[in-house]
Amino acid sequence: MANMGIVTLLTDFGLRDHFVAAMKGVMINLNPNLSFVDISHMVSAQDIFGGAFRLGQVWSLFPLKTVHLAVVDPGVGTARKPMVASAGGQFFVAPDNGLLSYVMDGRDDFIAHEITADHYFRKPVSDTFHGRDIFAPIAAWVSRGIPLDQMGPRIQDPVCLKLPAVKKVREGVMQGVILMVDQFGNAVTNLKPDDVPPKSKIILTGQREVPSFRTTFGEGAPGEVFVIPGSCGYLEICVKNGSAAATLDLKPGAPIGVVPA
Amino acid sequence: MANMGIVTLLTDFGLRDHFVAAMKGVMINLNPNLSFVDISHMVSAQDIFGGAFRLGQVWSLFPLKTVHLAVVDPGVGTARKPMVASAGGQFFVAPDNGLLSYVMDGRDDFIAHEITADHYFRKPVSDTFHGRDIFAPIAAWVSRGIPLDQMGPRIQDPVCLKLPAVKKVREGVMQGVILMVDQFGNAVTNLKPDDVPPKSKIILTGQREVPSFRTTFGEGAPGEVFVIPGSCGYLEICVKNGSAAATLDLKPGAPIGVVPA
Amino acid sequence: MANMGIVTLLTDFGLRDHFVAAMKGVMINLNPNLSFVDISHMVSAQDIFGGAFRLGQVWSLFPLKTVHLAVVDPGVGTARKPMVASAGGQFFVAPDNGLLSYVMDGRDDFIAHEITADHYFRKPVSDTFHGRDIFAPIAAWVSRGIPLDQMGPRIQDPVCLKLPAVKKVREGVMQGVILMVDQFGNAVTNLKPDDVPPKSKIILTGQREVPSFRTTFGEGAPGEVFVIPGSCGYLEICVKNGSAAATLDLKPGAPIGVVPA
Repeated sequence: MANMGIVTLLTDFGLRDHFVAAMKGVMINLNPNLSFVDISHMVSAQDIFGGAFRLGQVWSLFPLKTVHLAVVDPGVGTARKPMVASAGGQFFVAPDNGLLSYVMDGRDDFIAHEITADHYFRKPVSDTFHGRDIFAPIAAWVSRGIPLDQMGPRIQDPVCLKLPAVKKVREGVMQGVILMVDQFGNAVTNLKPDDVPPKSKIILTGQREVPSFRTTFGEGAPGEVFVIPGSCGYLEICVKNGSAAATLDLKPGAPIGVVPA
Repeated sequence: MANMGIVTLLTDFGLRDHFVAAMKGVMINLNPNLSFVDISHMVSAQDIFGGAFRLGQVWSLFPLKTVHLAVVDPGVGTARKPMVASAGGQFFVAPDNGLLSYVMDGRDDFIAHEITADHYFRKPVSDTFHGRDIFAPIAAWVSRGIPLDQMGPRIQDPVCLKLPAVKKVREGVMQGVILMVDQFGNAVTNLKPDDVPPKSKIILTGQREVPSFRTTFGEGAPGEVFVIPGSCGYLEICVKNGSAAATLDLKPGAPIGVVPA
Repeated sequence: MANMGIVTLLTDFGLRDHFVAAMKGVMINLNPNLSFVDISHMVSAQDIFGGAFRLGQVWSLFPLKTVHLAVVDPGVGTARKPMVASAGGQFFVAPDNGLLSYVMDGRDDFIAHEITADHYFRKPVSDTFHGRDIFAPIAAWVSRGIPLDQMGPRIQDPVCLKLPAVKKVREGVMQGVILMVDQFGNAVTNLKPDDVPPKSKIILTGQREVPSFRTTFGEGAPGEVFVIPGSCGYLEICVKNGSAAATLDLKPGAPIGVVPA
């Protein structure tokens, strides 16, 4: 009877303007029983990787049939395809620009369709806000159970970003990279704790060594720089009671070295 | 049975403090079946026009019977009237200070009542937070179906801001204004695309001409300045991969000229 | 039948990252009928007092059985206890670090349990994000009606911050303190309007006297400094159309004097 449903939203629209509410209004008009969960609307403008990483961290925590609506879309109105996809029993609506890269990563059940069924669109379709006019209505219709193959033809090779991999230089020597700087200034690397041998040293640019390994933020002295196995599944560079990113000038993309002690 | 209902919220309260949650707590206590949609809480402090414009952009996207609760209220506690209104089958709760100007604009079904029925208020009523003590409870009671004429007497002439109109100087020559700068730094003008003759030139203050017309953000070279028909229904001044507002020093209220090529 | 329920969230996680959505995903997976109300995610990093004050301002506005999930948790992963509590017919899930101090304050129905029932946890439990792995699942189970004594042993003496009290120096002379600076720059003191005799003078550091008492923000001239009985139940220092905190350099913790006129 009721078409209950959860839609998450991830955009770079910010929180000052009406853009997010426009999408929610369109959706709730088509499915009044929707619940919304905002993942983030403060992805840096046009930062597809930053959006992809955050979505990759949380989508699998949601229930089956959740619809994840993600719009970081510098190519809006151009040839990039609007896309709807499924993986792990959940659904995704996003531009085909790599924003779902961490959803696709390592899965063989990722199925994508181009969105061409324009009878579902809000009319007139603007060239600058497909979030409101295409993606939001499609997300609402998916939440109501319309199958993906009704939305358009299969996309066989959706755009996938080259996700930063750890480079093994030689035994015990690796080169990684910073994936994200979080709200607290912790720098999330792409190094998985199990891949780093015990007693390795972590080296930042400029030959700076991270002096300590810790397991909780509460250890160590104020201002201490340390490495910790973080909640994203990767090692993080932290400063006790401070911002590692600010203190050590760390940005996404900055290299991280691992060498034997 | 259930009193399902949607309440949108638009304020200048920001997201750091407890003010928005105070309003939501009051409402959900009176109607546990409410769903909330935040339009924005980052309207600039006391910026009635900025709030009015954003609300005007989205309210009509929502379902019938939605209640829009808008509180940008520099006159809280003074003689300005608390107001409840209806238009287009939806409801509005706001101070009578112009915040609903873009809802009233061009409609003849806008009906407003002063809120005087203090048995609906949260007691004691503070002089500084009518959002919590008057507007939120009234929004909850409206969502439960209490008719507006139970809230107080009709307001025949609600406050309406003088909305910025395009001035036609002579054939093909017009003067407009910037209405809003969005999150991306795009400057939304009050010029409707259909009102601007093909091959017009767009002129900013200081005789600066906007060099290109585009239809999508994806066209042009990085750093290029262009005009685009935006999603708000107006022409927007943009900088490819950048902020037009920052690059060109554009603010709400800044004049925009249109001249023949 | 349905396990309807409201969960409020208060954290210092910010709105840029995926941390809040991670908690919501975990909860909605365990109880799909939850409604979420965000109190704030912009509490200053590790500011337990700032979080406690904001939660104290709003929790009692919510319906019976609401679950308040509060995570400002600098000690995550260390010996501080995860805690679940009840007061006033509502529930609280938080670290035992003082974050519930304003809930406990003056109540004799506050009952707390340590969270030790690890079969409710999300596995593996990280050492750095108990919000996702311990607090969120416990909040969801509490919303589904699991009694608190199933979660772990009683905590007889939960951590309570020493809440700033007004010092009575002598008849009519008092020393208070600033508790919070709000979004508008208003400085909320710990002075209750009824405790300050009529015709008292309010003195800031540096012997600066606040010149006026007002009852609404709308009175006075632009730039005027005044004291007002605020919506938090305390006197607030304000600047008409401006930020008292910026103008007068007022921060939480700054002393406020009251002397006879």
